[in-house]
This record gives sequence, C-alpha cells and structure tokens, in this order.
Amino acid sequence: MKSKMGIKVSKLDEEKSRKDSGFGTAATSTRARLILPDGTFNVTRKGQSFSAWLNLYHRMITMNVFSFVLVIALSYFLVNLVFAVIYYLIGVEHLNGIEEQTKFISKFWGAFFFSSQTLTTVGYGHISPLGSLTNAVAAVEALIGLMMFALITGLVYGRFSTPSPKVLFSGNILVSPYLDINGLMFRLINERNSQLINVEVNVMMSRNEKDEEGKLTRKYYNLALERDMIQFFSTSWTVVHPITPESPFYNETSESLKASDTEILIAVEGMNDAYADPVHVRTSYLYNEFLWGKKFVPVLSEKGTGYVLDLKKINECVEAPLNN
Amino acid sequence: MKSKMGIKVSKLDEEKSRKDSGFGTAATSTRARLILPDGTFNVTRKGQSFSAWLNLYHRMITMNVFSFVLVIALSYFLVNLVFAVIYYLIGVEHLNGIEEQTKFISKFWGAFFFSSQTLTTVGYGHISPLGSLTNAVAAVEALIGLMMFALITGLVYGRFSTPSPKVLFSGNILVSPYLDINGLMFRLINERNSQLINVEVNVMMSRNEKDEEGKLTRKYYNLALERDMIQFFSTSWTVVHPITPESPFYNETSESLKASDTEILIAVEGMNDAYADPVHVRTSYLYNEFLWGKKFVPVLSEKGTGYVLDLKKINECVEAPLNN
Amino acid sequence: MKSKMGIKVSKLDEEKSRKDSGFGTAATSTRARLILPDGTFNVTRKGQSFSAWLNLYHRMITMNVFSFVLVIALSYFLVNLVFAVIYYLIGVEHLNGIEEQTKFISKFWGAFFFSSQTLTTVGYGHISPLGSLTNAVAAVEALIGLMMFALITGLVYGRFSTPSPKVLFSGNILVSPYLDINGLMFRLINERNSQLINVEVNVMMSRNEKDEEGKLTRKYYNLALERDMIQFFSTSWTVVHPITPESPFYNETSESLKASDTEILIAVEGMNDAYADPVHVRTSYLYNEFLWGKKFVPVLSEKGTGYVLDLKKINECVEAPLNN
Amino acid sequence: MKSKMGIKVSKLDEEKSRKDSGFGTAATSTRARLILPDGTFNVTRKGQSFSAWLNLYHRMITMNVFSFVLVIALSYFLVNLVFAVIYYLIGVEHLNGIEEQTKFISKFWGAFFFSSQTLTTVGYGHISPLGSLTNAVAAVEALIGLMMFALITGLVYGRFSTPSPKVLFSGNILVSPYLDINGLMFRLINERNSQLINVEVNVMMSRNEKDEEGKLTRKYYNLALERDMIQFFSTSWTVVHPITPESPFYNETSESLKASDTEILIAVEGMNDAYADPVHVRTSYLYNEFLWGKKFVPVLSEKGTGYVLDLKKINECVEAPLNN
Repeated sequence: MKSKMGIKVSKLDEEKSRKDSGFGTAATSTRARLILPDGTFNVTRKGQSFSAWLNLYHRMITMNVFSFVLVIALSYFLVNLVFAVIYYLIGVEHLNGIEEQTKFISKFWGAFFFSSQTLTTVGYGHISPLGSLTNAVAAVEALIGLMMFALITGLVYGRFSTPSPKVLFSGNILVSPYLDINGLMFRLINERNSQLINVEVNVMMSRNEKDEEGKLTRKYYNLALERDMIQFFSTSWTVVHPITPESPFYNETSESLKASDTEILIAVEGMNDAYADPVHVRTSYLYNEFLWGKKFVPVLSEKGTGYVLDLKKINECVEAPLNN
Repeated sequence: MKSKMGIKVSKLDEEKSRKDSGFGTAATSTRARLILPDGTFNVTRKGQSFSAWLNLYHRMITMNVFSFVLVIALSYFLVNLVFAVIYYLIGVEHLNGIEEQTKFISKFWGAFFFSSQTLTTVGYGHISPLGSLTNAVAAVEALIGLMMFALITGLVYGRFSTPSPKVLFSGNILVSPYLDINGLMFRLINERNSQLINVEVNVMMSRNEKDEEGKLTRKYYNLALERDMIQFFSTSWTVVHPITPESPFYNETSESLKASDTEILIAVEGMNDAYADPVHVRTSYLYNEFLWGKKFVPVLSEKGTGYVLDLKKINECVEAPLNN
Repeated sequence: MKSKMGIKVSKLDEEKSRKDSGFGTAATSTRARLILPDGTFNVTRKGQSFSAWLNLYHRMITMNVFSFVLVIALSYFLVNLVFAVIYYLIGVEHLNGIEEQTKFISKFWGAFFFSSQTLTTVGYGHISPLGSLTNAVAAVEALIGLMMFALITGLVYGRFSTPSPKVLFSGNILVSPYLDINGLMFRLINERNSQLINVEVNVMMSRNEKDEEGKLTRKYYNLALERDMIQFFSTSWTVVHPITPESPFYNETSESLKASDTEILIAVEGMNDAYADPVHVRTSYLYNEFLWGKKFVPVLSEKGTGYVLDLKKINECVEAPLNN
Repeated sequence: MKSKMGIKVSKLDEEKSRKDSGFGTAATSTRARLILPDGTFNVTRKGQSFSAWLNLYHRMITMNVFSFVLVIALSYFLVNLVFAVIYYLIGVEHLNGIEEQTKFISKFWGAFFFSSQTLTTVGYGHISPLGSLTNAVAAVEALIGLMMFALITGLVYGRFSTPSPKVLFSGNILVSPYLDINGLMFRLINERNSQLINVEVNVMMSRNEKDEEGKLTRKYYNLALERDMIQFFSTSWTVVHPITPESPFYNETSESLKASDTEILIAVEGMNDAYADPVHVRTSYLYNEFLWGKKFVPVLSEKGTGYVLDLKKINECVEAPLNN
C-alpha cells in the first residue's frame, strides 16, 4: 500500500506540476499555432446556440468603426422602409400635408420621409398623422426610435469603455547575450499616451514531447523571468528569460524548436489608470519567429528635460555574439 | 487551566478548519439543494423592505428582453394615458389644431396622441398647446419624456454591460479512472467566442453528518483539485478531484452519497477580457447526478491550421472501469 | 550600538505591529465615534477647494431620488427662465405665431414655453424663431438641451451602476457563549435578492489607552475571527471573535469598555455577482451597543424544498449564560 | 562549472533584486525627473500611429470641462455649416417656408438654421424639406444628429465615471526624528468627501550610481515603510520610511542627494467605495524638495462630537532636531 501510495502521489504531483494553457495535451498539430498574433485563440466553436453564435453586443462592440456606422445606417434605412410600407398600406391620405410633397416625390417616399422624421423625433410637422391608426403607428414608431437610440448610445459607450491598450510587441523574440549567460528576450511598448501600471508578464513555452509510450503530447512550461512585474509601464520593457541550466529552453537550437513545434505564449496584464480598467493582451511567437545572436537597441533617449520614446525602433536589433 | 486551554484551542481549531458555504449548519434538509442548477441560491427572503423586494433596477437588468420591452411599452402607454386625461380635463379646446383630428377620432384620443408626440419630443405641431396651463403641462411632460428616456438608456446599457458568460457545465459529474487512482470529474466550456482568462474553480462537498451528540448537521469540505486555475479558458476544461485516501470523498458509494444528501458546490471565477469584466458562475451536482465508471470523450479536434470545439459533445462519455 | 540597534528595532516592530484605522492616535475624544452607523466617517473637511467641496457628480449620485428629480426640474425651470428673458429682450415679434398664444398668456410666458419646446427639442413649431438673432439663440438652446440631457442620462446611469448592497447589520454586538469559551458576535444579512460572494469581514477594536507617559492615545487592534471569509453570502452570517486569552477583549467588562471609549470598527468587502461590482460596507458598534450573556436565534428555516430567511429576526436574541 | 554557475546565479540574483520603475537604467539625465508633479510620466512618444497619437476618446475624457464644451460647440457649428452648404447647393427653394425667414436673413443662414433644427431634432417645421433630395439629406442629418448625441452622452458619462480622487500630497518630503531614529516622511489627504479605503502606498528611491565600469546607471530601491497600507483613508496619512542602517537612504545628505540626482517615486492605490472604482495616484519628490530636521503639525482636531480635518495645514511643519 505504502509504495502504491508513493507511486500515486508522485504521479499526481508530476501531473499537478504540469502547466496547462487551457488547450490541453491534445493540441499536438505541427501546423496549428495556439494563439494568433492578434492575441485571439486559434479555436472555432461548433454547435453553439444561435444567441451565443450571434453574440450581437460583442460583435457591435468589437467591429471596426466603419462597419459599426454602416450597420446603424442600414438598420435606420430598413426600419424606415418597413414603416413607410405600413403608412402606405394604411393610406397616405392619412398623412396630412403630404400632397405638398407629392408634387415632387411619390406617395411612397413621402411616407418614407415622414417615417424618418418620426423615428428620429424631428417631427417637422409639415406632414402629420391623421386618424387613430396612423397616429397609433406614429406613436409606436417614435417609441421604437427612442429605444433604438438608447441602444446606439449604449453601444457607443460600450465601444468607448472597452479598453484598447494598443500594446506593441517586437516582431521577433531574440536569443541574446545576457549578463554572463544568454537570455530569451522580447519587448513591448505602450503606444498610447495613457498610463499602464502594475504590468505583469507571464511567459509560457509550449512544445510537443513524446511521453513514455512514445505518444506525442503537448507540454507547457512556465519560463522564469528576470523580472515579471513593473510598476510603471511608461516606456518600453524588454522581458528577459535567463537561459539557466534549469530552464526548459536550455540546449534548445533553431532546429529543435522547429522539430518540437515550439510556441512561446505570452500574457500581459496591467491597469489603465486613466479609466481604472484592467487590461489584458496576449501574443505568441512561433519557432520561426526566433532570432539568434542579436540584441535590441534602446528606444528611449533623453531630450531637454524629458525622455523620448521612438516606437519605430521597437524591432531594431544588432548582432551580438552569444555567451556559451 | 492548561488542559482546558488545550481543549479550547483544539475545539476552536476544529471549528476554524470547518468550511462554510454561507448556508451554515442548519441546512440539513434531505430535500432542499443549496444551489439551484442555474447557479442561484435556493433561498427566499421574508420581511424585506419594499424597495429591497422590488429592487427595480436589478429586475429590469435581469429580466428577459421580451419582458423588458413589454414593461417599457406599457409604461409608455400608461404615462400617455395619464397625460391624455389631464389634457382632456383642462379642455381640448386648448389643443390648437385638434379639430382637424377630431373629424377622424374622438377628442380624448386626440389628446392621447398629442401626449405621445410630446413625451417622445416628436412634436409635429399640427396639434399644439394653447394657454398657460396646457403649455405648462406639455413642458413638464416633455421633461418627463427625456428623463424616462434617460432611464431607458441607462437600463439598456446596464443590460449590455452586465456580464453574461454563458459557461456550459457537463450535465453529470463523473467518477472516472484517473492516473492509477480514480477522480471526480466534470467539465465546462465557454460557449461564447469572447475570451475568458485566469479562470479559477473552487469545488466544495456538502453533506449531512451526525455530530458527537448524534445531531444531524451539514458539513462542508473543500475538494482538492489536480489543477484549480488555468490562464486561458479557450476550449474546454475537465476539472479533476483526485480521490486520494485524504479525500473526504474516499470510500463514498452511490448509496452513501444519497444517504448523506451529498451536494457538490462549484464556483467558477474568471475575467472576460473583451470588456475586462470579472465573471462568476456557479452550479451544483446532487447525489443523483453522479455517473460511476465513465469518462468524458474529447471535445477538441484539429482542423486545417486551427482547432474545432464541439459544444454538443460536452456530455458525451464512455464506459471506463475504475481503478481500485 | 548593537543594543541601540536592538532598541530601535524592537520599538520599530512594536510601532509596525500597531494597527491603524486611518484616524491616527490623536482621536482620543470620549464623545466622538470614528465611524457613524451608516458607515461614513465622522470627519468634516476644512479648506477644501470649491470644486472638491461641491463635488457635484458625487452629490447627484448619492442624493435620494426625490432630491435628484427636484434638482433636475429646478434646473430645467431656471434654464427656461433665462432663455425666456433673452427671447423677450430680443423681442417676441421675432417669435412667429406667438400672437396666437398671447390671446391667452403674456408675451413673456409665450417666450418661456417656446424656450421649453426648444430645450426639450419638442419643437411643435406653432411658435418658431424669426431672424438671425432669435434663430441663433434657439440653435444654441437646442444644443444646451441635448447636453443637459446627456448629463442627466449619465447621472441616471451613474446612480444605477453605483452598487447599493443593502447589507443589514444586527443592531447590537453580543457577548455570547461560544464552544467552551465566550465570543463576540454580530450578524449581517444581504437584504437584496442579488448574490454577494467572496465576502470578507475585518473587525477592529479601537480604544483609548494611557501610554508610558500616561498620555491618552487611541490604539487599534485586529480581532481574530472564527471565520473571516465566506464564499457565498446567501443567507445570514454570524461573525464570531472567540475571546481567547490572546484576545485584546479578554477580561473586558461593560464598565471597562465605557471607560476606554471602546468602538468596534467593521469593514465588509464582497462582490455583487449580478453586475460583477465590488461591494464595500462599514459599520461600528460603540461600547453602549454591547449586549452581555445573550445569543442570536436562527433566521434561516426550511420550507418545502427550499430555505426561508426571515430578515425581521436579525436582532432577535435570547438569554445565554456565559462560560467562565 | 560550479563556480561559473555560482557567479551566474549571484549576478542573476543581484539583477533580479534590482527594482525597476519601468524607466530602465538608461535614464541617467541629471536634469530630467521621471515623474512630473501631476503624476504623469516625463516621456514623449515618437512614431505613434495617427489613431494612437490622436487617442480622441482619451483626450475628450481628460481635457478640462471648458475645452470639452468648446470642442462640442465647434463641431456642432461645423456640421451645421457643412449641411447648410449642401442645402444651399440643392437649392433653398426646396426648403418650404424659408421665404418667411429670408425677409430677415439671407437664404444661406436660413438653410443653416434649418440644419440646426434638424441636427438637434427640434424640427419646428416652419421650415421643412421639399423633394426627395432635400428630404434624404435631412433624414441623414437627423440620424447623424442622434449619433453625435450618443457620442456626447458616452463622453459625458465617461468623464463622470473616470475616477478623480483629488489626493493632496505635502509639497515637501521631510527628514524628521522618528522614535529613536529618523524617518523620511510625507503626507497625503483625501480632499474629497468620498471615502477611499484599502489604500496602499509604494515608495521607490531612484538615483544615479556608478557601476563597476564606472558607467553611470540609474538604480531603483524600494523604501520599507512603517506602514504601507491603511484600511480607511478618512483623514490624513503621514507615510514614514524609518531610516535604519538597512535603508538605502542611510547616511544620505542634502548634497549626496543632489549629486546622485535622487528622486523619490510614490504610487498610491486605493478603492473609492462610492463608485467601487480603483484609484491610482502618483507623485515624486526631487532632491530639492527635501526638508531636513522638520516635522509635520497635526491636521486633525476634534470638534463637538466629530473630527475636523484642516486641508490648509497639509504643508505646515516645525523645527525638530534629528536623532543621530
């Protein structure tokens, strides 16, 4: 029993010590990266409920501003179209003053523009509803207009308040000399003028390994960092993983990385203190995005009584012979 | 004294070591589950203050969208009704241009529609207020309209910004072979495409036990997990409680679970990084929701250069003889 | 030096060990409580900047709903008054159609109601601006109207989204028998149906003590709790400080509490998971709010397949002889 | 190898022990302070993308209220101007009722005011669109008006909900006698009546040092505090760094501070419990903002049954001979 216990525990501990990115061990494809460069996960969902698939609010919040305006303009047009049809069917003779218009435009478009004036609550009144039915429809349309507008307002603010940190990552991850050993290095810059603070970085290495039965499974390792938190992310930050003998990266080569389909997963957390919003960004580097024997050149310089940060230089690096 | 002290301390420590779900030890019913499947607590309140019972904002935020629209439409109708009565009592002769309308509809409905045009601030003007009283009422109604609309806007945004994670839990909790022992397993999936990160799971076991005096009291135990946190909740997560001899679940059987009215309480915390919102979901499994000697089948597969997650498979499991 | 060092360190450690509520040691009044029953601090500020004193947004958010509506209605009236004067001074002959009105009301009130129709953007149009000056003023007023309304909308949502947990505290703090010793006990209930989770309680004891020079200084002590965190605050929670010989409360009597002007400061933190809002509430118990030799009666009972929480019983307690 | 390893580790540990403010070691200017008194970083960015440079939302949120209103008023004027031109080009004969106006003002301004009435959805209707083109433009303008207003509403609420704590810092940092040693002291006051709780302070010392190669590099040290967190920041807080022999500040003099261009970096975190918003403020003290041999006078006094906090006294201090 004791021995059995011993085995149990050991196996369990080994299992527990294993890092998990949330992709599990099944993801052993040698083609599929886990995290796309834009920080989203390389996963598509099947069998979602319609509402979950649609996820309208999420889409409206995250789509670019042009599509956003387009969607709104389109809905505006369609709703007016629908009501135009309704007014037309009820009979435009119930739209007082439309004769004036119909010298220039068709009855239908007269109804359409009356609808737009009602939906937006402009209500010039040179066209006005007559009779209970038309009045009732107009009363409903005005309410719909207000609710549509409440929606737009909510969406607009939602888009505002969604944090968009714009953290820039260097395009490559470098293997550079570091102190008297070597280090794995990449750097990030806060492109915005807003202040990010209490920024933490977590770096994970993910690669395929053969388990005892020779089955290919994907393993995850945390890479210890020289520094994994800074209080003020005011300029640029070069994140360094010192390649000590304890590092899972020790003895890796360009070839071994490719063979094991290595991917470096990076998660950055911080706080945007302008709006007191937590900020999370992710990225990853694939084996083919490593540069060996190079080091970054500084991006920060002094000018007058202040400092200048040159974002254009984020990828700039120079040859640097590695320690061995 | 010393010994007394000793007893004290020991008793105190035991007391302290006891987990508390917040239901306390009184909840020993063998019929009542503590947490309903939808994650709400199985508790009703008596003697609340009216405002606390009404809790209007909370209700408006959490009710489904149809009821929400209905409530607004109804209030709109009622407010118009009230003001219609007022205008009617003041005298519709103070509504300039209503004669035009009253060829088609009654004076009262004329007043009603004028009210709706004022409340929504459409103000066509083919009906307009005459005299100080009617003008004053109209001025007040327009303000009320704006404030009602401010309320609607706030509620709409409140509904948007309330996080709705849509985390799916497997319908059953499984007792499955795990390494060379057995494990208690359930799994969860993020149905939405939005990203949940830094997800933590806390699993508690709650059952009735006889204390030294043989009195039935409800006890709570934390169940240690193979892994209680993952950084990226991008796919599915099978949460595992290894049934070691230390586990309070060790030696449990289907019968013993029923006898002690066992319930597994699950709390999940995470962060929705699209809106930087914390997310909390809960669920629970009753003794009759256990499956013995089964294990889950994978839900994640590879396709082309990405991964596919099949939500429909969340409950799928196959026979798996338990270790003993 | 060594010894000096020793003294230093010891003094320093003692200093460090001292808890500080933020009131400092100066607050030795025997009349003034530190925290008012409603949880606000018993402090008034002198020499604030006007904006800080006004703190308009904060006031508008925290005032009761009646005052809130009143302030808005008043501002509405005043703004209309101002513009009425302006239109009047420009000359009401520039308000086309006002003659119609002035059969019933004075020119001034005609201008006033035109203003209200412009500010709310109702714009019936039976009165309309003529000439550049009046038109310009009207154009400005309409914009002001929209901005005022944006403000109102913001304030309304601000009031919504400000968490109002409605946590009820027992009116008294009890010294009750606890296990085989005694305990200091008070209880709290979540009056709302919304769920509070991960609730933490921090209890501090504050009393006047004579320092070595016999000077009266206010000291603060943390009171260790049987349990200082619960995961689900679904029902009621009786917070217990076990009065062990280590407790600063050990050997206290009703008289000694009065003599040292003892106040128990309580801070509760949690998360309202309906809106994922952090929640903070505070209260305090003065020496005259202690009950000796009593214990609370349960507030939770079972009914059918659920539990019933009777808020009215929160203060109910019965005689209970203390252990000694 | 062992020795090599030894060196590595030691160097690495030393490196790790080094605090980093996020400015890195390059910032060795003897003129440039790292943090400006208002808490912003003394850094300008080069090569930002236009959108990142513009960062419109951020600017609109953080600019003062006068500029904010000005920007809105200006945009309002410009948009009206644009549409006035469009209506004018289409032909004002399509603006029904403008003749009435043009007795007083030019056709162009007539179009301008019609535009303003459309954009704000006032829509008096004494001027109204005729023909499809003018009607279409008006329909579009009304929608634009609503969206502009949605933007304004979002911005206004954004400005509200952005936490503005107004924490006052003493103008100088004092070297004062503290217990039987000396201490580095500054103090802060919450100017607002709102309550800040769970306030944490982090103090860093940054100075230039020559490394082994005699190269000037900027080093950062955390300064240990007598107390680095208070639960209730209700009054004033004097933050104290005890100058023990372990302190990097030990043996510093006014001259040595100037020579090494010392700057004390201060970061304060807390929670504004009125809105449950996290709050972050920063400041820094340069070598020339130190006062030696002085101590603060109390700002808190008792009055009746409460306490009075005199903000004006925040900088008041008196001579106090230092311990040595």
